[in-house]
Amino acid sequence: MKEVTLGIDIGGTNTVFGFVDKEGNCISDSSIPTNAHEEAELLFSRLFAKVKDMLAGLSGEYKMIGIGVGAPNANYYHGTVEQPPNLSWDIVNVLDIIKKYYDVPSAITNDANAAAIGEMQFGAAKGMKDFIVITLGTGLGSGIVVNGELVYGHDGFAGEIGHTIVDPAGRQCGCGRKGCLETYASASGIRRTVYELLCNSMEPSLLRKIPFEDLTSKMIYDAAVEGDKLALEAFDYTAKVLALKLVDAVAHTSPEAIILFGGLAAAGDLIFVPTKKYMEEFMLNIFKNKVKLIPSALTKGNTAVLGASALIWNELEKLKK
Amino acid sequence: MKEVTLGIDIGGTNTVFGFVDKEGNCISDSSIPTNAHEEAELLFSRLFAKVKDMLAGLSGEYKMIGIGVGAPNANYYHGTVEQPPNLSWDIVNVLDIIKKYYDVPSAITNDANAAAIGEMQFGAAKGMKDFIVITLGTGLGSGIVVNGELVYGHDGFAGEIGHTIVDPAGRQCGCGRKGCLETYASASGIRRTVYELLCNSMEPSLLRKIPFEDLTSKMIYDAAVEGDKLALEAFDYTAKVLALKLVDAVAHTSPEAIILFGGLAAAGDLIFVPTKKYMEEFMLNIFKNKVKLIPSALTKGNTAVLGASALIWNELEKLKK
Repeated sequence: MKEVTLGIDIGGTNTVFGFVDKEGNCISDSSIPTNAHEEAELLFSRLFAKVKDMLAGLSGEYKMIGIGVGAPNANYYHGTVEQPPNLSWDIVNVLDIIKKYYDVPSAITNDANAAAIGEMQFGAAKGMKDFIVITLGTGLGSGIVVNGELVYGHDGFAGEIGHTIVDPAGRQCGCGRKGCLETYASASGIRRTVYELLCNSMEPSLLRKIPFEDLTSKMIYDAAVEGDKLALEAFDYTAKVLALKLVDAVAHTSPEAIILFGGLAAAGDLIFVPTKKYMEEFMLNIFKNKVKLIPSALTKGNTAVLGASALIWNELEKLKK
Repeated sequence: MKEVTLGIDIGGTNTVFGFVDKEGNCISDSSIPTNAHEEAELLFSRLFAKVKDMLAGLSGEYKMIGIGVGAPNANYYHGTVEQPPNLSWDIVNVLDIIKKYYDVPSAITNDANAAAIGEMQFGAAKGMKDFIVITLGTGLGSGIVVNGELVYGHDGFAGEIGHTIVDPAGRQCGCGRKGCLETYASASGIRRTVYELLCNSMEPSLLRKIPFEDLTSKMIYDAAVEGDKLALEAFDYTAKVLALKLVDAVAHTSPEAIILFGGLAAAGDLIFVPTKKYMEEFMLNIFKNKVKLIPSALTKGNTAVLGASALIWNELEKLKK
């Protein structure tokens, strides 16, 4: 029987899950609606009914030896999800719930940390011991790996580079403070930057006709590809602010590589080229031209499932030692 | 025979060294001039002649089982000191030189990293697994500990919080860039702040009569103790900038404590009280009121010797595992 782990990613809208082998091949995956207003117990009841069917459908060839979970506000040490922003849960011990269904090792962390372990197990960070993953989605998440281990910190919540401060008098952030990196470098941040540029400059732009609520980072990307100067400037500014804080991150943990992941990273050269340029410009001498800036390589299958599965593969390896 | 290690700290002016037991008691210590213009081989020749005498003077009661070195621009992985700012050395493999004198395990790192291991072994961080040491001297050094291990990073130079950027258009830094934290939060930084305040405000001050070159952080401390408003404002501003970047550091590695060490930290409440206040003001919600801000407890004996000795005690423990 071939061994697989179950990776589960709990999102605000959908919960995706799948079986992944030790080489990072996703054998089978699926998703169910999360139903954010519902209690956690009900989600897992629906989820594990599906999991049971899926495992049965694999005709006895595979054995599930562990379960990894990615979820917002997850605490690795306690096995809990604590007041997640998009779900109606309070503090839920997810690993205790899982034990009611399967007697296998399990682990939980947030999606950016899971992505970092995913890159280490199956992706762009294979063989690396020191690297940082930055997820550029609606917000900015991060997972920091030092000496081959994910940094959880004293309380389990380390790796919040999205909430390092660019400007204490800057843009209002969802966290209640001002000027956090994610208010600049994220899909929502680049929209805010476009609006700042629209008011500050007189440059004509395709984007002047779009109301703020309708503007997407994809529209900004499309405009930039067509050569729209203001859209290009928005990418340049986003890259500059991101680079400034990545250089700070390098000064903390001196990674071999920084891996960009998620929607905004899909803009490719438009974000990678200026970010790399500004990074080298801002970098402390001893770190100059040492740190790679590379895209995610979690491309075979659902990245969130691969990350969650990698989390538990990593724990199973630690148990063997 | 009682086991001791030799701790050596190579400074620009003096090299201090001493024998330290496993409990952090300094049995004997001394110092020699570094002679910064001299080759490294000559320094170690003079040093180990003294060490031999010192060991002989301990009348056979003690056995030296390891050597730890703190030095500027030291690379833990390579055992080297690389183009140190205050010495005429180029790239010198210090551990190779040591082997010519003693066949015991040895290790080298910079003084701030050694201080961090010192706090973990003998000082304020005993029993902690995640903490940061900040040395506030002429510059700002730092040592970051994650999961009980010092963070060296991919290239051995991690932990440069003094060179995280406060303002990319800010004060000129010795590293060739602008706006690094150490240009604000250090003994030299607070002098610059006093001069900025002297020109920007009309507040009368005891410090208005002192030329920049003669001004010391001790004078600023003395003026603040006497209630000089401008000196107090300089401490407040220093604390505010320091706190802003410490909050970023917390977002990276989520430490249990931050330990302040060195000349400026000796100002006590004048620096600790406002730094703690601003830290809590700037802190991301999930970290609020969790991170201790405490003074160094490496007070029994020469701190640099204790740090360097702790480095090798820590390595010896790892070898046992």
